[in-house]
Amino acid sequence: MKFYKVANLIKPKKIVIEEFKKPEIESDEALIKVNYAGICGTDIAIYNGDYKVPLPLILGHEFTGEVIEVGEDVSNKLIGKRITVEINNTCLSYPKKTKCSACKKGLSTHCLKRTVLGIINADGTFAQLVKVPAKNIHILPDNISDEEGVFIEPLAAAIQTFELSKFKIGDKVIVLGVGRLGVLICSVANSLGADVIAISRSKEKLKRAKIYGALEIMDANDLNLISKVKELTNGLGADIVVESTGSENGFNLAINLVRPRGTIALKSTHGILINNVDQTKIVVDEIRIQGSRCGPFSKAIEFLNSKKIDVKPLISEIFPLGETEEALKLSQQEPKILIKCN
Amino acid sequence: MKFYKVANLIKPKKIVIEEFKKPEIESDEALIKVNYAGICGTDIAIYNGDYKVPLPLILGHEFTGEVIEVGEDVSNKLIGKRITVEINNTCLSYPKKTKCSACKKGLSTHCLKRTVLGIINADGTFAQLVKVPAKNIHILPDNISDEEGVFIEPLAAAIQTFELSKFKIGDKVIVLGVGRLGVLICSVANSLGADVIAISRSKEKLKRAKIYGALEIMDANDLNLISKVKELTNGLGADIVVESTGSENGFNLAINLVRPRGTIALKSTHGILINNVDQTKIVVDEIRIQGSRCGPFSKAIEFLNSKKIDVKPLISEIFPLGETEEALKLSQQEPKILIKCN
Repeated sequence: MKFYKVANLIKPKKIVIEEFKKPEIESDEALIKVNYAGICGTDIAIYNGDYKVPLPLILGHEFTGEVIEVGEDVSNKLIGKRITVEINNTCLSYPKKTKCSACKKGLSTHCLKRTVLGIINADGTFAQLVKVPAKNIHILPDNISDEEGVFIEPLAAAIQTFELSKFKIGDKVIVLGVGRLGVLICSVANSLGADVIAISRSKEKLKRAKIYGALEIMDANDLNLISKVKELTNGLGADIVVESTGSENGFNLAINLVRPRGTIALKSTHGILINNVDQTKIVVDEIRIQGSRCGPFSKAIEFLNSKKIDVKPLISEIFPLGETEEALKLSQQEPKILIKCN
Repeated sequence: MKFYKVANLIKPKKIVIEEFKKPEIESDEALIKVNYAGICGTDIAIYNGDYKVPLPLILGHEFTGEVIEVGEDVSNKLIGKRITVEINNTCLSYPKKTKCSACKKGLSTHCLKRTVLGIINADGTFAQLVKVPAKNIHILPDNISDEEGVFIEPLAAAIQTFELSKFKIGDKVIVLGVGRLGVLICSVANSLGADVIAISRSKEKLKRAKIYGALEIMDANDLNLISKVKELTNGLGADIVVESTGSENGFNLAINLVRPRGTIALKSTHGILINNVDQTKIVVDEIRIQGSRCGPFSKAIEFLNSKKIDVKPLISEIFPLGETEEALKLSQQEPKILIKCN
């Protein structure tokens, strides 16, 4: 019997490269040979032990691969296709299952019975093989490469920001933190017609944010940051502040950068509890705070396919599967690293 | 020259009853003889020093009174009228002033030049006389008594909750904390068609909440509170949780009671910073948090006038102006106390 390699997180900060048997698939599942998998902030937060989920766990949920086997209820035509996959395994992913009350209510990404690929009770894609519900598969268009396709999941998350927090063309949208996810959010916000203001501590990231749609860039270390933002926004603050810093410092700063009746769009899932939140200011300024997570894959594929964004320059390095732990450690400094899984 | 009495907060927890000269009014202002003024959570938070505003300050912003003098640009017909007054003194309150960018944007309650009656840089209504911009005055209908009229301002704030956080008829709305403001929110939510669930530590307040529109009542001390709420809501949590506890404990509990994609409506302005906020849960569950403050007086007057609510039983005591400090101290235990100012 052939064995396959996986990178298994057995406890915080400890990954073991192990051999696994080929996963058995159900009638409505497919087996995927993983090509590339990306590392995102959630992977790092789980690896560090800040974002607590049941371990051991094979991390990884942004990926591309090839379908190599399908269950009896799945069309054979999928075999050999280049694909990516949605990460929430829900009642809708398994059509034969009875639907939970969240799925019935149209909230399938919040399915009460869900597992989440590489995050909650479902082995992820830092592995040579991964099994997924066939319903969750999206075929890659020809002109999206295997490397580029890894960005579909985070791009969908970036798009979801503005699915839940709408704005008008010309509105001022601050992207606070323009790392792996933030830079994609700059691009999406710009394409939707926002005047994007990127804020970061890193000059390099700010320079990059300009290429990816930021109209203005501002140094997060500037002691006059808040007053400078007010100057740019008629004394009011930004219409939307997207908190994508990946750190616990973003939330409270965002409260000081948003205008009365404006929206703070939270994206960071760093697993850290926030202190010193000024509830009274949220009430007095009638601020809205809107969390958002996974987004529409079809829109992300369309966005990527339309060449509105070139994600290739965002890839800083590609590591082999055997060096997943080194890749996760290096990712703490926020380059976008892919794992080549086969 | 005649002198008038005011209750002046000279520092936290120290009110001095002083004599004041009659305030001079501008051409677009009116002088009001205050009849009754109510004590609310914001008054208490400022009195305690938790909610920090410039002192000395005459507190009080929920009130009724009689117009006794008007400026030259104001109609004389207002003289003698029984009235209540909106609390934000904005560019719109003073029509001759240049409009700030917030007022231009339609956000007049967030006017950048505003003062707020009895809260920010404007003397309030724990006084025999108060001056206000005439534009902010609302005349009381005949069948709203002077005592009842004090509830117009907090009722408007209760209504504003659902102006900014809409729901569908039959949605589950938790009111967390059913004190002075929360009980009004129960009534408004019920009248808008919600299934209201009241949660409080006090059996007495829960009993009262039932009279004011709560369909279900639940003990905040119940260790199984969260799972009981889930049972009531198909395992999901409430569509809206209104945080009106007036304490720092409400925010984080609300995060655990609301459903994925649901809304937490924040009302408490206790001035206390909140710790241990689970940002990751807000993101993963795509929760919305919506602050809200002052609301539409016309809707509140209509609500009160239509007899959808009987506010008289909510008045626990009436104190004379000279005993404002005693009244504020007693209000910490949350009865609704009015001050008789003349």
